[in-house]
Amino acid sequence: MSSRIVDLIARKRDGGELTGAEIARMISDQTPDEQLAAFLMAVVFRGMTEAETIALLDAMLAGGTRLQWPWPVADKHSTGGVGDKTTLVVAPLVAACGVHVAKMSGRGLGHTGGTIDKLESIPGLRVDLTVEQMRAQVERVGIVVCAQTADLAPADGRLYALRDLTATVSSLPLIATSIMSKKIASGATRLALDVKSGEGALLPDQRSARELADLMVRLGTGHGIEATAFVSAMDQPLGWAVGNALEVEESVATLAGGGPDDLRALALEAAGWLVGDELRVRRALESGEALETYRRWIRAQGGDPDAPLEAAPVVQEVAAPFPATVTRCSARAVGGLAMRLGAGRPGKGDRIDHAVGVVVHRKRGDTVEQGQPLATVHARAEVDPVQVLDCFELDRRA
Amino acid sequence: MSSRIVDLIARKRDGGELTGAEIARMISDQTPDEQLAAFLMAVVFRGMTEAETIALLDAMLAGGTRLQWPWPVADKHSTGGVGDKTTLVVAPLVAACGVHVAKMSGRGLGHTGGTIDKLESIPGLRVDLTVEQMRAQVERVGIVVCAQTADLAPADGRLYALRDLTATVSSLPLIATSIMSKKIASGATRLALDVKSGEGALLPDQRSARELADLMVRLGTGHGIEATAFVSAMDQPLGWAVGNALEVEESVATLAGGGPDDLRALALEAAGWLVGDELRVRRALESGEALETYRRWIRAQGGDPDAPLEAAPVVQEVAAPFPATVTRCSARAVGGLAMRLGAGRPGKGDRIDHAVGVVVHRKRGDTVEQGQPLATVHARAEVDPVQVLDCFELDRRA
Repeated sequence: MSSRIVDLIARKRDGGELTGAEIARMISDQTPDEQLAAFLMAVVFRGMTEAETIALLDAMLAGGTRLQWPWPVADKHSTGGVGDKTTLVVAPLVAACGVHVAKMSGRGLGHTGGTIDKLESIPGLRVDLTVEQMRAQVERVGIVVCAQTADLAPADGRLYALRDLTATVSSLPLIATSIMSKKIASGATRLALDVKSGEGALLPDQRSARELADLMVRLGTGHGIEATAFVSAMDQPLGWAVGNALEVEESVATLAGGGPDDLRALALEAAGWLVGDELRVRRALESGEALETYRRWIRAQGGDPDAPLEAAPVVQEVAAPFPATVTRCSARAVGGLAMRLGAGRPGKGDRIDHAVGVVVHRKRGDTVEQGQPLATVHARAEVDPVQVLDCFELDRRA
Repeated sequence: MSSRIVDLIARKRDGGELTGAEIARMISDQTPDEQLAAFLMAVVFRGMTEAETIALLDAMLAGGTRLQWPWPVADKHSTGGVGDKTTLVVAPLVAACGVHVAKMSGRGLGHTGGTIDKLESIPGLRVDLTVEQMRAQVERVGIVVCAQTADLAPADGRLYALRDLTATVSSLPLIATSIMSKKIASGATRLALDVKSGEGALLPDQRSARELADLMVRLGTGHGIEATAFVSAMDQPLGWAVGNALEVEESVATLAGGGPDDLRALALEAAGWLVGDELRVRRALESGEALETYRRWIRAQGGDPDAPLEAAPVVQEVAAPFPATVTRCSARAVGGLAMRLGAGRPGKGDRIDHAVGVVVHRKRGDTVEQGQPLATVHARAEVDPVQVLDCFELDRRA
């Protein structure tokens, strides 16, 4: 006689282990949402063994399609942070080196948008492609980034929506299987994972971030994916720009050889690993090949890389009230401000304002003179400068 | 701006406290089952503060009716155990002493039936009464015990059904508020609570049982109820009989001055506290007044106290295989056996077989000779005697 679902929940609640078949039953469509929700909360408290996690991933993959590409395909995934536009730099950088990129990406929730939202700030660009359109585009220009189609990892769709409603997002096995089910289903063969840690990230402490990174690599390996994962800090924004169009502009500047140091360094590291040749990647950036690949990519998806992006009507500089050294530029605070301006998505299905956002001009360790700009706000209306100053901690200099 | 439900769940998950208004929102009809389920599981792990528990009780009472009786009303509640038929003895004992009893009771889940199921094994007895019928019966015979009407504590109905499905039953604040919301709504003014601890009870350890007992008394006091709570052991069945009609017979035997010692002692203790005069209660038992009150009560609800109860076709004695001292008569095992015979209710809405059950003849500390009966099974068909012997641990004597 097989156990009832309530007995499986009770076993997890009490710290016991479920078999693979039991986990598959738990996440099946037959299990009502309220039972699955209670199970997920028990997992938040009790965790999952490695065997349970592997079984969960298998069960999530079982119901969906797994794409097969005729060539090796590189992918890059970040667990998300404030100002994280790395994909927009890494993808063309890798493709410029002759490694195919076929990436499906999600829309963002909270903070600022996801990669797809950022791309949509480019006039004309299409993100809803069929698998056939993806394949044709990769064959023609070597790179495609589009929205996730529904039938890949359908179980993850339901689980993710439920976790989002029930405060059960922050569990390592649940995060790892959610990400890896999508990566495996999308047919990636080589994968660079960027796990953010710090106050602006899903996981605040570095140890959990490292654990998540290692777990995802093991899950990928089990499905024949060559994967690596690095943990990067998310206590201050990545780069300077936070907001969708502003981040596209910063990505283009980086591909053109400028841009912020931290963004360039992270992009070179990820692309270097995916291509397997750091010098080649550096050359692609310096020679302009990467920027040229970016432009071909954007055109292939119907966008115009030369068209001006939508600009916000109010551009407001906020200056330092005294000479100071910046001791903190809070990722969480800047993300919250960008969100209030309209750059993020408070709830699923909410509209994003692509034009608005924040550009910080100083980060931790930088000095600033009285009256020099700390940040520029791009908004629909003026904001109280205190909201901007609150993003920083300043150490007054004599 | 008020927090979203998911933020309230997250706060409880992280060990924080909710305000009364937030708890009321959480259990309101507007909160979807899956969010409430995740919250309940977080409560299982994190508990609730005293203030939260009081707020939960208030929120549960807010949506329903609170009955008002024109006289003081005594009630007795047990958290339930194997062979627990105490109410059937206590209620007429108290009423015989001139204290009104107006009690609503539930149907059982698992083990054996609840008080209502036991009463229904008496031919003709009605348990579905209106509040007017209850009041008229109390005025005429001083006692009524009937099924709970739906509009008392409706929030508890939803919470209880959800807890039952999601393995979130075993949480002290959830148990305490579920019980006390019904007791307060039913208009009790004096309440004896019997909290069972041990392997056959909801709470295995005595410390949690004591905590639950004290919490319920405090909640009752806050609503003007004079309450007491005692913790009693449930490691072996209470009395000898386990099964609905068998337990009615044992209750009548106890009211007639016989019956098992442990049942009589517990009933005298509870009734003594409710009446406030132990000698008076003892006299009511010895004089036959209690039995006479029982007969009037049963007749008032349409039952015939002289009608034979339904008997099981197979009555099977199981004897000791060797001379022994009984070191254990497991409440859990006897309850499980009675359940398999059909005396309990595996799922909500399942039918109960009133005739079947187990009568144990020896309990812990008793001696037995080879061939003397350990237990008698009342069943629809013979059972393997091993199932009965497995309920006991025997220490062989030389």
